[in-house]
Amino acid sequence: MPLIVIDVVRGHDETYLTSLLDGIHEAVVDAFEVPDTDRYQVLTQHEPFELRALDTGLGLTRSRDLTFIRVISKTRPESAKRRLYELIAQRLHSRLGLSGEDIIVTIVENTGADWSFGRGTAQFLTGELPEAPIPPGDNRR
Amino acid sequence: MPLIVIDVVRGHDETYLTSLLDGIHEAVVDAFEVPDTDRYQVLTQHEPFELRALDTGLGLTRSRDLTFIRVISKTRPESAKRRLYELIAQRLHSRLGLSGEDIIVTIVENTGADWSFGRGTAQFLTGELPEAPIPPGDNRR
Amino acid sequence: MPLIVIDVVRGHDETYLTSLLDGIHEAVVDAFEVPDTDRYQVLTQHEPFELRALDTGLGLTRSRDLTFIRVISKTRPESAKRRLYELIAQRLHSRLGLSGEDIIVTIVENTGADWSFGRGTAQFLTGELPEAPIPPGDNRR
Repeated sequence: MPLIVIDVVRGHDETYLTSLLDGIHEAVVDAFEVPDTDRYQVLTQHEPFELRALDTGLGLTRSRDLTFIRVISKTRPESAKRRLYELIAQRLHSRLGLSGEDIIVTIVENTGADWSFGRGTAQFLTGELPEAPIPPGDNRR
Repeated sequence: MPLIVIDVVRGHDETYLTSLLDGIHEAVVDAFEVPDTDRYQVLTQHEPFELRALDTGLGLTRSRDLTFIRVISKTRPESAKRRLYELIAQRLHSRLGLSGEDIIVTIVENTGADWSFGRGTAQFLTGELPEAPIPPGDNRR
Repeated sequence: MPLIVIDVVRGHDETYLTSLLDGIHEAVVDAFEVPDTDRYQVLTQHEPFELRALDTGLGLTRSRDLTFIRVISKTRPESAKRRLYELIAQRLHSRLGLSGEDIIVTIVENTGADWSFGRGTAQFLTGELPEAPIPPGDNRR
């Protein structure tokens, strides 16, 4: 269910970008314990001057691989958020060699009533989807 | 007042996209009981591989007409949200033949202090706009 | 720390857009009392028909300079939000002659746990960044 909005600098090919989306999705599935079919992603590519990231004094070096990741999700425990940040960095490094210094993630929370996945209904309210997390082993296919 | 952020796959013409924006706006006006002048929309068109939507096991089939709709709004009752999802699906189907299976909506809420519509002021705080909803018959023209 | 998402109509050159981003950043630093290194911005340029803004009856005239500014931030007092709206309008007018009638700002709040600035960690939770605001004089370089 989370919707993931990703912004990167133009210049990577479709293979790279597909792997980027796949890696982020794997991290979401593992960290938030959602089914593999819970995939909702919006990627936008930008001119270099359109993305700006300094480092809040943290000593981070940003490159052309800079990746902003915005997550809209129902409430998640702090431990799941920390795991998400960690897994995104791990997956993108192992898949693409992406440096963790290029990855910025921010989460905005909402509730079950704030989601309609299709057909004009609110699936968390109709009972089509359970309010509690779906166990990761159950892919609901 | 809600701000509506819409993401679609590139390939529809301006007539289609204008009708899409019009239909979403009509649904917002009806469901949230806001004046017709409460229109704030940001559309972005994407390459097909930039948008990814599976179905959380709900049996939805997504097509090239896939439409992500993000809504930023002051708090709304659950009934208004359900009505919004329903009306968006109805309007876009009647206007464009769009399938409800291609429409994903998510809402993020904020408060009156979180809006400035222009001139550098917070109109819900200055009293230029009432905190309570404006009745739909009053278009404040 | 706030992440600022900006949407404008295509047609302004890079010098204008860079100054726009700089002016918004200055306003954020002043209004939210964050260090100058707290800069995170995502700009997207659009076709004219992709951005729609009416005025909720406020008597605002929108032009091709229309600028949507979305702010994701940890909780801020109402006074800081009002100051932000005011300073954005002032800075963009003095830098670019931009009319306040073309500037729409909306804020969405989250918490310290909702941010990872890099390296896969949640810097507000690890203590790498203080939960309380950093005084503006301390640029943490």
